[in-house]
Amino acid sequence: MDEAAESVNKMSWGTQLWDQYENISSQTNKGIEFLEKYCSFIQDRLAIEKEYATKLRRLAKNYQPKKREEEDNEFSSCQAFRNVLKEVNDLAGQREVVAESLEQRIVQGIQVLSRALREERKRCLNEGTSLQQTLTAQLGALDRAKRNYEKAFRESEKAVENHKKADMDLNLSRAEVERYKNIMTSKIQQSDDAKNEYANQLQKTNNLQRQHYSVALPTVFNRLQELDEKRTGGIREFIIGTAEVESAVAPIIARCMEGIVKAGESINEKEDSFKVIERYQSGFTPPTDIPFDDLSKQNPDSPMDSRVLSSHFTVKGTISKGVKRRPAIFSFFGSNKVSVYVCL
Amino acid sequence: MDEAAESVNKMSWGTQLWDQYENISSQTNKGIEFLEKYCSFIQDRLAIEKEYATKLRRLAKNYQPKKREEEDNEFSSCQAFRNVLKEVNDLAGQREVVAESLEQRIVQGIQVLSRALREERKRCLNEGTSLQQTLTAQLGALDRAKRNYEKAFRESEKAVENHKKADMDLNLSRAEVERYKNIMTSKIQQSDDAKNEYANQLQKTNNLQRQHYSVALPTVFNRLQELDEKRTGGIREFIIGTAEVESAVAPIIARCMEGIVKAGESINEKEDSFKVIERYQSGFTPPTDIPFDDLSKQNPDSPMDSRVLSSHFTVKGTISKGVKRRPAIFSFFGSNKVSVYVCL
Repeated sequence: MDEAAESVNKMSWGTQLWDQYENISSQTNKGIEFLEKYCSFIQDRLAIEKEYATKLRRLAKNYQPKKREEEDNEFSSCQAFRNVLKEVNDLAGQREVVAESLEQRIVQGIQVLSRALREERKRCLNEGTSLQQTLTAQLGALDRAKRNYEKAFRESEKAVENHKKADMDLNLSRAEVERYKNIMTSKIQQSDDAKNEYANQLQKTNNLQRQHYSVALPTVFNRLQELDEKRTGGIREFIIGTAEVESAVAPIIARCMEGIVKAGESINEKEDSFKVIERYQSGFTPPTDIPFDDLSKQNPDSPMDSRVLSSHFTVKGTISKGVKRRPAIFSFFGSNKVSVYVCL
Repeated sequence: MDEAAESVNKMSWGTQLWDQYENISSQTNKGIEFLEKYCSFIQDRLAIEKEYATKLRRLAKNYQPKKREEEDNEFSSCQAFRNVLKEVNDLAGQREVVAESLEQRIVQGIQVLSRALREERKRCLNEGTSLQQTLTAQLGALDRAKRNYEKAFRESEKAVENHKKADMDLNLSRAEVERYKNIMTSKIQQSDDAKNEYANQLQKTNNLQRQHYSVALPTVFNRLQELDEKRTGGIREFIIGTAEVESAVAPIIARCMEGIVKAGESINEKEDSFKVIERYQSGFTPPTDIPFDDLSKQNPDSPMDSRVLSSHFTVKGTISKGVKRRPAIFSFFGSNKVSVYVCL
C-alpha cells in the first residue's frame, strides 16, 4: 500500500471503523438529528422575526392618524410622523422578508437534505445488515460442514478401530470381518467427502469474509461517512445562508433609517407655525382708540346705537380675506366677556 | 413699517392671531400632545425591541447544548452552532442597546422637553388672562365713568331746564330762583367733573388698549409661537435621533452576521468525520482467513479449545492503540450474534 492510499485509509470509516456498525449507525443518526435541530432553531428564529414584524406593523397601524385628526396633516411634523410610520412598516416588511427567506431557503433546504440523508442512511444500514446476514449464513454452513466432518472423521476412526478389532478376533467369520472392512471403507469415504465439503465451505467462507471485510462492508461504511460529511457540509452552507438572508436586508433597513432621517429633516417649525396663522387668522385688526363721546356737542337726533354699529362696521370693513371661523372678537378670554363698543 | 418688519409681522402669531387666544391655547396643547404621542410611540417601539431581544436571548439559551451532549462539542459543526448562538445572543444585546438608547435619548428627552413646554405654556396663558383682566377692568372703569358723565350731563341739562323754567316763572321768589341757579351751577360742575373723569379714563383706557394689543398680548402670543416652534423642532431632532440610535447598531449587527458566516466557514466535514474515527476505532483488524483444521494431521494431545484461544489472542495482539470502548467484535449486527472462532 503506498503512502497516499494509506493516508486515505486512515480517514476512511470503511477501513478504520469496520467493527463499529452500531456506533456508525448512532453517530449518523445523531448527525441528522443535529441538522434537524438547526432546522428547528431556524424555525423558532423565523417565528420570532414574524412576531417582531407583526408587532411593528401593528405599532405603525395604531399610530396612524385618525380621520378626525386629518386636518393636522398639513403640518410638516405630522407629515414627517406619517412618513416615519411608513418606514416602520417597511422595516416590518424587511423582517418578514427575513422570515420568508429563512423558511424557503434554510428550513425547506434542510428538510429536503435531511429526508435524502435519512433515506440513504436507511439503505446503507439495510445493506450492511444484509451483508452481515450473508456472512453469518456462510459461517453457519461452514460450522455445519466442520461438525459433519468431525462426526464423520470420528466415525471413520471408530470403524477403523472396529475393523482392526474384528480382524484380530479369530472367532469371527471371514464374512463378518469383510462386513467391518466394508463399513470402514464406507466411513472413510464418508469422512473424506465431509472433509472435502468442509474444505469447500471453508474456501467459500474465506472468500466471502475477505470480500466482506475488504470491499463490501467498507463500501457501505464509506457511503455512511460520505452522507455524514454531506450533512456536515450542509450545516456549513445553511449557517452561511442564514447570515446571508439577514445581511441581504441590511441595505434596505439602512434606507428605511435614511427615510426616517429625511422625514425628520423635512420638519419646518417656521412653516408649521405659519400654517397655524393661515388656519386661524380672522383678518380683523385690533381695536383702535375709542373715540371721545362729547354729549354737549352731539346731534341729539342721531341715536347712540347707530353710531356704535357704524363704528363696528368700520372694523369689519378691514377684513381682507376669507375667514374660516369668526369667534366673537372680544370673547376670547374665557367668560370675561366685554362688549367695548356696545357700552360706549 | 418697512418690508422686512412687515414680513416678520406676517409670520407672527402676536400680530396675526391677536384675537385667537382660544385657538392658540388649543393649538399649543395639541402640539404638546402630539410630541407626547411621538414619545408613547417610541415607548411602544422600544417595548417591541426589548421583547424581540428577550426572545432572541431565550432562543440562544434554549439551543445551548446540554451537559450530556458536551462530548459532541469536539465536532466543528457543533462548535460552529455554539458560535452562531453566541452571535444571536450578541444580536439580542444590540436590540437591547437600541431599546435603552431610545429610552435614554428619546423618551427621557421628550419628557424633559414636554414638561418645560407645558410649564411655559401655562405661564403664557396665565399672563394672557391677567393682561385681558387688566384691560377688562379698565374698560369697566371707562364704562362707569361714561355712565357717570351721561347721568351728570342729563342731570345738568335737567337743572338748566329747571332753572330756565324757574327764571321764567314770575310766581317764584328770587330766593327760589337763586336755589335753582345754584343747583344748575352745581350740576354743571358735576357734569364737567364727570366729563373730565370720563376723558381721563378714556385716555388711560386707550393707552392701555394700545399697549395691550401692540405690545403686551403680542409678546405673550409670540412666546407661545416660540414654544410651539421649539416643540416642532424638538420632534425633528427626536425623529432624526431615533434613526441614529438604530443606525448606530447596524455595523455591530453586520459584524454579528460576519461572525455567523465565519462560524459556518469553520465547519470542516473531513475533520469531523475523522473525529468519529478517533472516537470509535477499536484498533482491531478485520478477521483473517480461517485456517483449515485437518483432523487427520493434528496432534491428538492438543485440545481444540486451546487452539481457538490462541488464534483469538493473535487477533487481539494486533491492537496498536488505546481503545475507548471494546464491543464484542462480532456482535455488531443487532441480535445476529455469531461466534466465529468459538465454533471452529
